[in-house]
Amino acid sequence: MRLDDMRLYDMKMAPNPRRVRMFLAEKGLAVPLVEVDIQAGANLSPEYLAVNPRGVVPTLVLADGRVLDESIAICRYVEALRPEPNLFGRDAFEIGEIEQWQRRMEFDGMFNIAAAFRNSAPAYASRGAPGSGPETPAIPALAERGQLLGRQWLDRLEEALATREWLAAGRFTVADITAFICLDFAKWVGLRAGPDHPNVTAYHARIKARPSAAA
Amino acid sequence: MRLDDMRLYDMKMAPNPRRVRMFLAEKGLAVPLVEVDIQAGANLSPEYLAVNPRGVVPTLVLADGRVLDESIAICRYVEALRPEPNLFGRDAFEIGEIEQWQRRMEFDGMFNIAAAFRNSAPAYASRGAPGSGPETPAIPALAERGQLLGRQWLDRLEEALATREWLAAGRFTVADITAFICLDFAKWVGLRAGPDHPNVTAYHARIKARPSAAA
Repeated sequence: MRLDDMRLYDMKMAPNPRRVRMFLAEKGLAVPLVEVDIQAGANLSPEYLAVNPRGVVPTLVLADGRVLDESIAICRYVEALRPEPNLFGRDAFEIGEIEQWQRRMEFDGMFNIAAAFRNSAPAYASRGAPGSGPETPAIPALAERGQLLGRQWLDRLEEALATREWLAAGRFTVADITAFICLDFAKWVGLRAGPDHPNVTAYHARIKARPSAAA
Repeated sequence: MRLDDMRLYDMKMAPNPRRVRMFLAEKGLAVPLVEVDIQAGANLSPEYLAVNPRGVVPTLVLADGRVLDESIAICRYVEALRPEPNLFGRDAFEIGEIEQWQRRMEFDGMFNIAAAFRNSAPAYASRGAPGSGPETPAIPALAERGQLLGRQWLDRLEEALATREWLAAGRFTVADITAFICLDFAKWVGLRAGPDHPNVTAYHARIKARPSAAA
């Protein structure tokens, strides 16, 4: 089903909008996309800032003009519209456990990888932090810290996956979407599951086989 | 009501555990607390790492030994156990909107203030990043960036509060808990609502008057 009365401001290459596209695909939904080229600075154009003053993607615009940003906020909205398949949890413990793993993947994975990327890629030399606002010159020491902690995230993920097929609730959830997209994003900064990460490698392949992985 | 079969690993001074204590208080609940002195490094003791290998607080331990970390994951678990008063949203848009504002307060507020604090306070000279893992020497340029973006967060909060009494859904929610605790945390790094922030000042006073603010 297409939600043709909505628009999703997107960037095909970027990890956060991909989380929403993949989430929608798992629900069997699609929303018309509007591409925003962050690398070229299109997220800082007056046109885009009129949609989202924070200058980040993704942003979902509803038929009545109301706006939601933040990937996981958009995913939760979609889950409430279309509850099945359930991706955020059914009972109290599942809800807590899925949120816990989702946030671990974001804070230990995504944020460190983003720090490594944004503070080393030449295109972002004056935009080390995402979004609109003052210039934030890249901080090489932060890129290094991101590498160090990104590696720790990968090692801990390997350990977690030694005892489970999926991160939470015994089934594929939004936490796995974040983890999978982090694993792909990590390659941008040279962090890859290697011979020390057989569980991560198998997990990534398991998710990549899902049709939503191509969304 | 006290949930005496649970334990919440806490640190009285720290902002994240305070979010959970305040959330519990809004629900009329209390959980026995175990103090963990992060500044003294108690979060990195073998005893605590056996509870939470990531070495962060808060951590909730259930009667059956299952463990949840991440403040917002614990809050969502509590919301599912005790749905009223509702703090995370009733319908799809509320759920999305509250999550959006909650995350803006975390990412634009809490994370920048934490970066400013952890990368400048002498007690954290070798622990610029929270939790267990490799040493992360403080990065002074990151403390500066945290100040710069923390100030932007405060200014944007002022703007948002010009048109609303509460951040989302027209009532007090978890997003306001995060915002309020961020405002107190921001003082640690010298960021305060001043004459340019009358809406923030009134908002802070409004929340401080709630009994849960003392939790």
